[in-house]
Amino acid sequence: MSFFMPTKLYSGRDCIKNNASVFSAFGKKALIVTGRTSAKASGALDDIISVLQKDNIAYDIFDKVLNNPTVENCYEGGMLAKKSNVDFIVAIGGGSPLDASKAIAMYATNDIEPLDIFLGEQKNKPLSIIAVPTTAGTGSEVTQYSVLTVDSEETKKSFSTNDTFATVAFLDARYTESLPLGITIDTAVDALSHSLESILNKRTNKFSELYAKEALKLIGKAIPALISGDITFEIREILLLASMYAGVSIAQTGTTVVHSMGYPLTYYKGLTHGNANGLLLSSFLEGCDKANHSLVNELLGYLGLEDLNEFDEVLKKLMPNRNILTNEEAKKFASKTIKAKNVASCIWDITEAEEYSFFAKLTK
Amino acid sequence: MSFFMPTKLYSGRDCIKNNASVFSAFGKKALIVTGRTSAKASGALDDIISVLQKDNIAYDIFDKVLNNPTVENCYEGGMLAKKSNVDFIVAIGGGSPLDASKAIAMYATNDIEPLDIFLGEQKNKPLSIIAVPTTAGTGSEVTQYSVLTVDSEETKKSFSTNDTFATVAFLDARYTESLPLGITIDTAVDALSHSLESILNKRTNKFSELYAKEALKLIGKAIPALISGDITFEIREILLLASMYAGVSIAQTGTTVVHSMGYPLTYYKGLTHGNANGLLLSSFLEGCDKANHSLVNELLGYLGLEDLNEFDEVLKKLMPNRNILTNEEAKKFASKTIKAKNVASCIWDITEAEEYSFFAKLTK
Repeated sequence: MSFFMPTKLYSGRDCIKNNASVFSAFGKKALIVTGRTSAKASGALDDIISVLQKDNIAYDIFDKVLNNPTVENCYEGGMLAKKSNVDFIVAIGGGSPLDASKAIAMYATNDIEPLDIFLGEQKNKPLSIIAVPTTAGTGSEVTQYSVLTVDSEETKKSFSTNDTFATVAFLDARYTESLPLGITIDTAVDALSHSLESILNKRTNKFSELYAKEALKLIGKAIPALISGDITFEIREILLLASMYAGVSIAQTGTTVVHSMGYPLTYYKGLTHGNANGLLLSSFLEGCDKANHSLVNELLGYLGLEDLNEFDEVLKKLMPNRNILTNEEAKKFASKTIKAKNVASCIWDITEAEEYSFFAKLTK
Repeated sequence: MSFFMPTKLYSGRDCIKNNASVFSAFGKKALIVTGRTSAKASGALDDIISVLQKDNIAYDIFDKVLNNPTVENCYEGGMLAKKSNVDFIVAIGGGSPLDASKAIAMYATNDIEPLDIFLGEQKNKPLSIIAVPTTAGTGSEVTQYSVLTVDSEETKKSFSTNDTFATVAFLDARYTESLPLGITIDTAVDALSHSLESILNKRTNKFSELYAKEALKLIGKAIPALISGDITFEIREILLLASMYAGVSIAQTGTTVVHSMGYPLTYYKGLTHGNANGLLLSSFLEGCDKANHSLVNELLGYLGLEDLNEFDEVLKKLMPNRNILTNEEAKKFASKTIKAKNVASCIWDITEAEEYSFFAKLTK
């Protein structure tokens, strides 16, 4: 049983401005890693640039991170970090820029081939990362994981090391205020998925559960707002905390089959990561319920939900579009994802036939 | 609002043996820092030596840490670490060796005068520390604090830096099995005090509360066993977890007046640290109750207690010897401790007269 989460957290409105002195300890030049729009739209980029300028820290910007970033995309960022001779990285965005920044930080300090990133530990430690989430779902700001798209294998793969945790994370819910409702829901469901997959997991332990349960309680408070679409600032703060807590929990345990089964829905069907997970969650909980009814019941209680039916109804309200696969796709995805390594964390011995039955619920 | 707890935790029976590979990353030579008896009696010293030998890591032993270690005592350890040219420290014991190891780690890498330790950050980072608690109370394995006795000022003082957290802590309740009941109680009450002082504190935040509340729930489970004296292994595991959680909470907030008022009871009257805190806790909770009744009530609920009377009864059962001060001492201690810096964290504006009234309850 172990626990590790070395990221220093600053949280609350204006936490970057109020902790501006944090940055200068990281060096003289930063690479800001972000996507094309979210960093700007959220206001986080302006806040970061303002603080860097005040501290006389130079910076370059790599704003080309793709949604579901590829290995090549991150390698390009790593080459820029090398060329620019930066001392550290400031990652701003949702899961894509945050995950990409971990690979970029590693490419920046190591001469490796792009796909060697999946070997994990490298000769040199990666650059330090300051993470600024602009969505409330990924939890990447407090995990060691970087999930990258590998086109040659037609899937997503992850790497992690003890040194790919962000050194500092700033959690300011203001940066999530510009998110459209759809992304707010999808990312919240990603956090929900993290919490459930962390507890309903062979690797769960007391430490990860403390965080996962707290995340579930917070998400439970936010469910009515997610359904009604009335997302207040207070709800955004709750969701950002929940996302972080859920991230801490999966940092200890990893995810399980919902995540591995969700990847083809993203890779082949273009669903967002949270949406992909959300379409599989009810089936997963039903499977877990057969293995450990009392635990599933306890977790539903934290969410403020009566039973599996109510859980399924909530997910259907949040994500009504469900008939997206052909039967052939359902078969193909099951045969592919049953080989994923985190299948071993599932609390029952899930079979390919069961995975197929989960996907089959999503057929046209 | 911030959170930082970079220590990697390994927990459970035989966690040192089961994670022996952790040590070699720390270097080729260790200084084992401990007191005269507890490391040996607990079995922790044997386990550590066995793992170091297996990994071909050389070691020296500094087993002269005093109860309530003085600055000079730690300085002596630091000089040994320098002379032995060790790469890291393994600290085994209760709060005294664990706190001493933080000072020793700092003296080992910096040429400073003994009392300069209280300046905090030094030119060089301290040696890395692996911490093995053998009591369940201090939480020092997960805090940045080192509390040292300063004879020239007739009190205890603390120092801390971001680098004085242990890098790794091993929590094996077997090492607490040899503790006599009195120390088990005193240390458990120290953890209780940490939890309460962290929440009933102007610096409390959501992150520290998550841990402090969990600690209170665990201590609540252990109270009947502490009173009856029937301390099973399961209770020892609960207390060790509670102590760690309470430590994480004070690492965020610091302690408040119970700790500063307890120091003279230890310095002048020779009470253990936990006993000193325990004699003041009821008075402290009464004061807090006037400032925030609903919060105190909530916290008593986590402990499984009805009200302040029941809390006071529990403490009187655990620590019956209470008439230990003269009126002159009560006055002197109040006038001294009202100047402590953590008085500012108290949730109400405590006066010297109130502090005197707390001490006066302990007069003969």
